[in-house]
Amino acid sequence: MNKPFVAVLMGSDSDLPVMQSTLDVLRALAIPYEVKITSAHRTPDTTHTYVKNADQRGCAVFIAAAGLAAHLAGAVSAATLKPVIGVPLDAGPLKGMDSLLSTVQMPGGIPVATVAIGKAGAKNAAYLASQIMALGDTELATRIRAEREANAKGVIEKDAKLQADLAR
Amino acid sequence: MNKPFVAVLMGSDSDLPVMQSTLDVLRALAIPYEVKITSAHRTPDTTHTYVKNADQRGCAVFIAAAGLAAHLAGAVSAATLKPVIGVPLDAGPLKGMDSLLSTVQMPGGIPVATVAIGKAGAKNAAYLASQIMALGDTELATRIRAEREANAKGVIEKDAKLQADLAR
Amino acid sequence: MNKPFVAVLMGSDSDLPVMQSTLDVLRALAIPYEVKITSAHRTPDTTHTYVKNADQRGCAVFIAAAGLAAHLAGAVSAATLKPVIGVPLDAGPLKGMDSLLSTVQMPGGIPVATVAIGKAGAKNAAYLASQIMALGDTELATRIRAEREANAKGVIEKDAKLQADLAR
Amino acid sequence: MNKPFVAVLMGSDSDLPVMQSTLDVLRALAIPYEVKITSAHRTPDTTHTYVKNADQRGCAVFIAAAGLAAHLAGAVSAATLKPVIGVPLDAGPLKGMDSLLSTVQMPGGIPVATVAIGKAGAKNAAYLASQIMALGDTELATRIRAEREANAKGVIEKDAKLQADLAR
Amino acid sequence: MNKPFVAVLMGSDSDLPVMQSTLDVLRALAIPYEVKITSAHRTPDTTHTYVKNADQRGCAVFIAAAGLAAHLAGAVSAATLKPVIGVPLDAGPLKGMDSLLSTVQMPGGIPVATVAIGKAGAKNAAYLASQIMALGDTELATRIRAEREANAKGVIEKDAKLQADLAR
Amino acid sequence: MNKPFVAVLMGSDSDLPVMQSTLDVLRALAIPYEVKITSAHRTPDTTHTYVKNADQRGCAVFIAAAGLAAHLAGAVSAATLKPVIGVPLDAGPLKGMDSLLSTVQMPGGIPVATVAIGKAGAKNAAYLASQIMALGDTELATRIRAEREANAKGVIEKDAKLQADLAR
Amino acid sequence: MNKPFVAVLMGSDSDLPVMQSTLDVLRALAIPYEVKITSAHRTPDTTHTYVKNADQRGCAVFIAAAGLAAHLAGAVSAATLKPVIGVPLDAGPLKGMDSLLSTVQMPGGIPVATVAIGKAGAKNAAYLASQIMALGDTELATRIRAEREANAKGVIEKDAKLQADLAR
Amino acid sequence: MNKPFVAVLMGSDSDLPVMQSTLDVLRALAIPYEVKITSAHRTPDTTHTYVKNADQRGCAVFIAAAGLAAHLAGAVSAATLKPVIGVPLDAGPLKGMDSLLSTVQMPGGIPVATVAIGKAGAKNAAYLASQIMALGDTELATRIRAEREANAKGVIEKDAKLQADLAR
Repeated sequence: MNKPFVAVLMGSDSDLPVMQSTLDVLRALAIPYEVKITSAHRTPDTTHTYVKNADQRGCAVFIAAAGLAAHLAGAVSAATLKPVIGVPLDAGPLKGMDSLLSTVQMPGGIPVATVAIGKAGAKNAAYLASQIMALGDTELATRIRAEREANAKGVIEKDAKLQADLAR
Repeated sequence: MNKPFVAVLMGSDSDLPVMQSTLDVLRALAIPYEVKITSAHRTPDTTHTYVKNADQRGCAVFIAAAGLAAHLAGAVSAATLKPVIGVPLDAGPLKGMDSLLSTVQMPGGIPVATVAIGKAGAKNAAYLASQIMALGDTELATRIRAEREANAKGVIEKDAKLQADLAR
Repeated sequence: MNKPFVAVLMGSDSDLPVMQSTLDVLRALAIPYEVKITSAHRTPDTTHTYVKNADQRGCAVFIAAAGLAAHLAGAVSAATLKPVIGVPLDAGPLKGMDSLLSTVQMPGGIPVATVAIGKAGAKNAAYLASQIMALGDTELATRIRAEREANAKGVIEKDAKLQADLAR
Repeated sequence: MNKPFVAVLMGSDSDLPVMQSTLDVLRALAIPYEVKITSAHRTPDTTHTYVKNADQRGCAVFIAAAGLAAHLAGAVSAATLKPVIGVPLDAGPLKGMDSLLSTVQMPGGIPVATVAIGKAGAKNAAYLASQIMALGDTELATRIRAEREANAKGVIEKDAKLQADLAR
Repeated sequence: MNKPFVAVLMGSDSDLPVMQSTLDVLRALAIPYEVKITSAHRTPDTTHTYVKNADQRGCAVFIAAAGLAAHLAGAVSAATLKPVIGVPLDAGPLKGMDSLLSTVQMPGGIPVATVAIGKAGAKNAAYLASQIMALGDTELATRIRAEREANAKGVIEKDAKLQADLAR
Repeated sequence: MNKPFVAVLMGSDSDLPVMQSTLDVLRALAIPYEVKITSAHRTPDTTHTYVKNADQRGCAVFIAAAGLAAHLAGAVSAATLKPVIGVPLDAGPLKGMDSLLSTVQMPGGIPVATVAIGKAGAKNAAYLASQIMALGDTELATRIRAEREANAKGVIEKDAKLQADLAR
Repeated sequence: MNKPFVAVLMGSDSDLPVMQSTLDVLRALAIPYEVKITSAHRTPDTTHTYVKNADQRGCAVFIAAAGLAAHLAGAVSAATLKPVIGVPLDAGPLKGMDSLLSTVQMPGGIPVATVAIGKAGAKNAAYLASQIMALGDTELATRIRAEREANAKGVIEKDAKLQADLAR
Repeated sequence: MNKPFVAVLMGSDSDLPVMQSTLDVLRALAIPYEVKITSAHRTPDTTHTYVKNADQRGCAVFIAAAGLAAHLAGAVSAATLKPVIGVPLDAGPLKGMDSLLSTVQMPGGIPVATVAIGKAGAKNAAYLASQIMALGDTELATRIRAEREANAKGVIEKDAKLQADLAR
């Protein structure tokens, strides 16, 4: 059987620079992933087919990123029973408030696990996916713990550096 | 050949009281219509099949109403080349700001003709659909002109009544 | 008789760079159009006269773009029974939220078909106008279908390129 | 020559209950006024004709109240050089944020003196109109001063009553 | 070993009526759960201790609901590596916009899977938790599929009833 | 007796670049004006003294510009019975939404005539002040009419230039 | 010398029902207080005189509550160097967003310690004032600690009751 | 015994440039302070330990600055009975509206004294802390008075310079 993987969908290749943060975290945690450019509106059939297919091939978690009237995560969630994480992107003049509301305000029955707008959300989508997959993978859980401790250590080191600077 | 008609879609039967305004205007203008309860998320296949089928049977304009993360109009627009009118509904605590942004902020290529939130929008969806259909139906254009003149006359009569009240 | 055309109105020549997207799509679809700089507030009589005249000369769809308290589309809609598409522009510090609400929240009876703020809306105004006109022009319908398929193909090719890049 | 008067316009008779506050203040200050129900969109010609006519008959200040995409005050301002006060009404689900932005965000050249949403604004429209007219009417200035002192006294009396209640 | 369970935290017993929707869905899907009233601010130590303890006892997913400056889900996420779902509640005058932003805009490293404000979100929190747990429980996956199909059937039946009503 | 003048107050010299538009319009219309940098919060006594003094010296209209929690116009209005125009400035991260609401939402009894945020409002404050002063100055009324006609002509010329460009 | 006290100002007696929460907490903590109805705009001189006078009589902390364009707290802060706490009230259609921004967005130099909109803020204004005064009053600090522990105990008891209900 | 000091916490070293304004004001007023980089989410235990420790060592006032879902001030307030000032930072696409609401909308019992978003708030946090500490330190009160007078003088001098410029 295939190893479970994460499928990262985005509506346009212009979303790649922000979503690279998702891929970087997944790679750092050694989680297999696929990346797919596909649009809820321009290529709805491709999206649907890809989700159904990825689902059957062992995709454990879907991550979908879109801006404006961001329907991609909702469309993915409607096509699968796997957990779907939505990343609202800061595209266009409303700075992502439109994509946030379009992603998070899903009606009862079709959930989307929404994270923050833009880069912070792109990172957290990967962390959230990894935490979900770690429920069945204790080695992954260990790697996540190490990552979180490293993050905490980073904060502590920055503080130590500041204290040293101030003491000079 | 079938007479062109309007297809009015809504995500839930709880949307009917507001959307009755759409149906009332269509009936007043003698425009044939269908009503369909179907959800972009809960019954995406039914929605897709209905739109494709209505399109072939001669549907000229689609009207789609939804609240919250309102994806219905966008999903319809992705499935047809006919004009699609979106009515954002005032459902939930954000009072329709979520459904407005989810409906109107469509990315380039897949337009949704968005009208006002709630009842004013429900009426105008029907007027807009009728104006579109009147491009090819001069009798309908005449009926629309009469309707607009009646609306104007209603304002003028209310003013006349006020002036009479004030003069007393 | 004149061939039906689209009239594209904007309040200022500073709106031209964004509205060029509208003109480009109309040209690509071989739809005749006129462009008119006229303001709902500074030149209300010119606006009114132009709309009445264009209406009689065979204008099928009006597109009106404005920023701030964007009244242009509403003023046009009040002067014609042809479908009117409103493009809210991102002008001023509120990033188009003011023009969006001024355009979309029209009272019952005088509809404006509102599209997204700024460039995405400028494109979609043209697509929406073309879909309306295609109801009576099967050759145009064919060109629109080709355009939408080309858009879809563009997404698919970007994905193919990404997959190739990742496979390297 | 006619005594200068205030013209109070509103888009619908449903606006009368809120706008009664305007009329009450004008009456209390013995300022002549007219009331007119007319819509920027449904009866644009009536609105235009009324404004031109009232202007010539000696209207000194226009007050225009509307909800939703509130264009009435802007349309009046485009038709006259007299000061125009806009009262955004709390109509519809967005609670007057739409009418506020539609009224206040006027482009350079066509000003609207905007006051608060709803009843507070309805009162202040009358006070503002009276302050404008008092520039050429010292007796009116005296009445306004008395009114403001009465308002202040009302606050002071409420405080006195509270202190008495607390002292008991 | 304990069967994995869901821990549902809320800041106040006044949140129970809305969060009952979460519990109802979990019960319908036969997912074990605990309910805990505890506040991020008033009882931070109790919250921290409970989360650590539930985590060790086999809690697979945390659901945290709060209103206003909703910190509960973030505080839980900071104390565990298990997936945390945040439900922003519509408490106070800002109608849940404050709790939505306080819940979803988490900084990189500490994700919260945010769902819709209020009742729709309360339901979806349970569905999302169940989808996460179903990754390791095929029987649960089957029950979720049945639930979703029942939801879809509900929409279709409402439409059938409407068509029957219209046909009469 | 002194000729009536406009007093233009602003909270900081950093507001001068935007408020220069006010001064330019006043100068173009040959309206006497004073400019005063004074803060509602940092120099409340200076503000109060200046307003009382200017009022007695023949100030006909006050214009007050401020950003953030913009209290200046309200403070001026509380100290005079002359019309007060408020210009909300786009200062700080909220882009003037804070200053708009702080300026326009005045309680009943103390009106502020609010114009658009930033430069459009700065211009319109001067036009509005001039329209108020023209009620008692027919020569000024003539100059305002000429200015508005020039504005309209500017729009018409831009359109003529565009038509010429398109015809080439 | 007088014992230090808290001065609670509000713009209208209609604010008393919400601000009663402030008074209740102050009384429970045995902190002396005064209540004053006075308006930043309608009675600016009374406000100024009261603040100066209370300051000299030993007022340690001012609490000022207002709705709409809430200037009261800022006006108080401009008149004293004592800490000033602002409570934005939910008055009018914008639900307190206007009073929040008018209160919190104070420019550098004149701080207002802003708390939540409405009742939660009214309570916290009293707690914050008490925490400030407790810096110089260890007995008060002990009473505050007891109050907070009682609050925490209240949450824990509600949870205990829930667990008991669930166990039945 | 230690002299009372201010503890300035921030979630990241990227917040230092803005928070330098806080430190500058504290230094100018000769108030002892500590600076600590620590995160409510990434290093919750460090935060808790530091607050408890600083509290015991004589910290009089805490200042906590954070962006996005800004929980730091609330977390500090939950861990101490000393006054806590929250500075919402303008980080991320929502321009600080998220951090403002996350900081100010605290539930009853756990107050956070919230100041303006970004730099104005950073300054005012220091002024507010100093005003609190001056309740027990008359020399500090004198320094604050001098600072405020200097601020006022700065405004007056800028006005004087403007008048001189205009007179030339």
